[in-house]
Amino acid sequence: MIAGIELGGTKTVVAIGTAAGDVQEEWRFPTTAPEETFSRAIDWLNERGTPEAIGIAAFGPLGVVPGRASYGKLLATPKPGWAGFSITDTLATAFPQARLTIETDVNAAALAEARLGAAQGLDDVAYITIGTGIGAGILSGGHLVHGALHPETGHFKVPRKPGDDFPGVCPFHGDCLEGLASGPSIAARWGKDAAELPADHPAWETEAWYLAHGVLALLGIVSPSRVIIGGGVSQAEGFHEKTERILNQIAAGYFSPIEAKPYIVPPMLGQQAGIKGALLLAAV
Amino acid sequence: MIAGIELGGTKTVVAIGTAAGDVQEEWRFPTTAPEETFSRAIDWLNERGTPEAIGIAAFGPLGVVPGRASYGKLLATPKPGWAGFSITDTLATAFPQARLTIETDVNAAALAEARLGAAQGLDDVAYITIGTGIGAGILSGGHLVHGALHPETGHFKVPRKPGDDFPGVCPFHGDCLEGLASGPSIAARWGKDAAELPADHPAWETEAWYLAHGVLALLGIVSPSRVIIGGGVSQAEGFHEKTERILNQIAAGYFSPIEAKPYIVPPMLGQQAGIKGALLLAAV
Repeated sequence: MIAGIELGGTKTVVAIGTAAGDVQEEWRFPTTAPEETFSRAIDWLNERGTPEAIGIAAFGPLGVVPGRASYGKLLATPKPGWAGFSITDTLATAFPQARLTIETDVNAAALAEARLGAAQGLDDVAYITIGTGIGAGILSGGHLVHGALHPETGHFKVPRKPGDDFPGVCPFHGDCLEGLASGPSIAARWGKDAAELPADHPAWETEAWYLAHGVLALLGIVSPSRVIIGGGVSQAEGFHEKTERILNQIAAGYFSPIEAKPYIVPPMLGQQAGIKGALLLAAV
Repeated sequence: MIAGIELGGTKTVVAIGTAAGDVQEEWRFPTTAPEETFSRAIDWLNERGTPEAIGIAAFGPLGVVPGRASYGKLLATPKPGWAGFSITDTLATAFPQARLTIETDVNAAALAEARLGAAQGLDDVAYITIGTGIGAGILSGGHLVHGALHPETGHFKVPRKPGDDFPGVCPFHGDCLEGLASGPSIAARWGKDAAELPADHPAWETEAWYLAHGVLALLGIVSPSRVIIGGGVSQAEGFHEKTERILNQIAAGYFSPIEAKPYIVPPMLGQQAGIKGALLLAAV
């Protein structure tokens, strides 16, 4: 039996399925304390059989590099009770024979979209999500990028849109990409949530400017074949096209990958990306 | 016999050595036309034996992803006669039994520094070189990053240093990182070559500002455990320390990898990085 667990900040999904990412049965429930959350997932799995492999997609910061002491643990998260909790130890105790693979939620979603969704068949893919924060999962040459910790793609700096003097909302950096373009920054900048702003509101030109500069940095550093932008804030009509138009202007013909059109696309797997990614991880 | 070839814009190095990167014998000669350059390298190797594996580190743009039609070829380079030349076809004709591995010069240098030099033992390393242009080789989880083409790390955009209105020298982008911080941009900005500017010249504070923002983007996207900065422009006294100081200011305590000090270091292998990288590639 192949199992997947998607641990989100507010909801958890546990599923059984195939190593090809097909969900056979799943259960969604609210994320509560770590012991309770995993005890519920473990009980649900036990009722269905004995998993030989479990893929886990979890919120972070998270130890994802095998062989390090931090592997499988939640790190310095502000979420009460979770910092230091070992997901892999908990699951290994319950299922000592199961092969465990753990990744960040964004990397799992990137993998799922690259295997089954909006970037099917591509080995170099970036999946950006814009919501409360900005994060990215990156598949490079078929390998998920971890680095020394894992990427924190929202926290580098891009040039200001001319005339924009909004200070940004990131408590660490003020005007990093996340500080200038996350959901909370839109709400603070325009006095309304992103979902309430019509597609022709100038907010979207500003948002697309910052995302295009973030994608340009991705192009310069990991050269993805396609970039997926998802998350609540990305759902305004025409947002992907607007971002791609600005990207083409600032790239100035230099980067051949963006000649594949469309280059910036929405995700295809929606709410299923995380759990499908978890099942795919179990197969690795 | 293990062989390495480093193909640079002005000089070529051919060597025999070990798969651990030890050079046993090498020959450096000027790069001329492609057929002549490779004919000289091939003759030199033939006099020494029959290579079972050849690693090649070459200038770009270059096809580096195995299985693609572009693999082993120089792409749209302005260097006369080289666009479309197939390095791997040429070597496969001369040495049909040899295993060939080809990489960009910066990736080969990154690999050599990660295995034998300034980032020994690390699997997540960025090697930035600042000279006529700005480029980077990236090792991520032990894999060299290629992407859809290969990274062009000099050509994304970073915020302006407050008060700086120099337009930049990149013919494509004007004020991309390369346009604001390459060797030619220093010469255009200050009226003197980098080598003539004393270590306390304000040029270096400007240079360090832009490089620090480039490194911040690398941290956000691939999270290297260490960043090496080499190339002619990086050799001013104190330049790495200055860049690390600014990086720490703008990172604002957010990125744990940079807590390993020093985080930004000069290369250790100097002129040998490319050819040692080529030998290491032969072992892959």
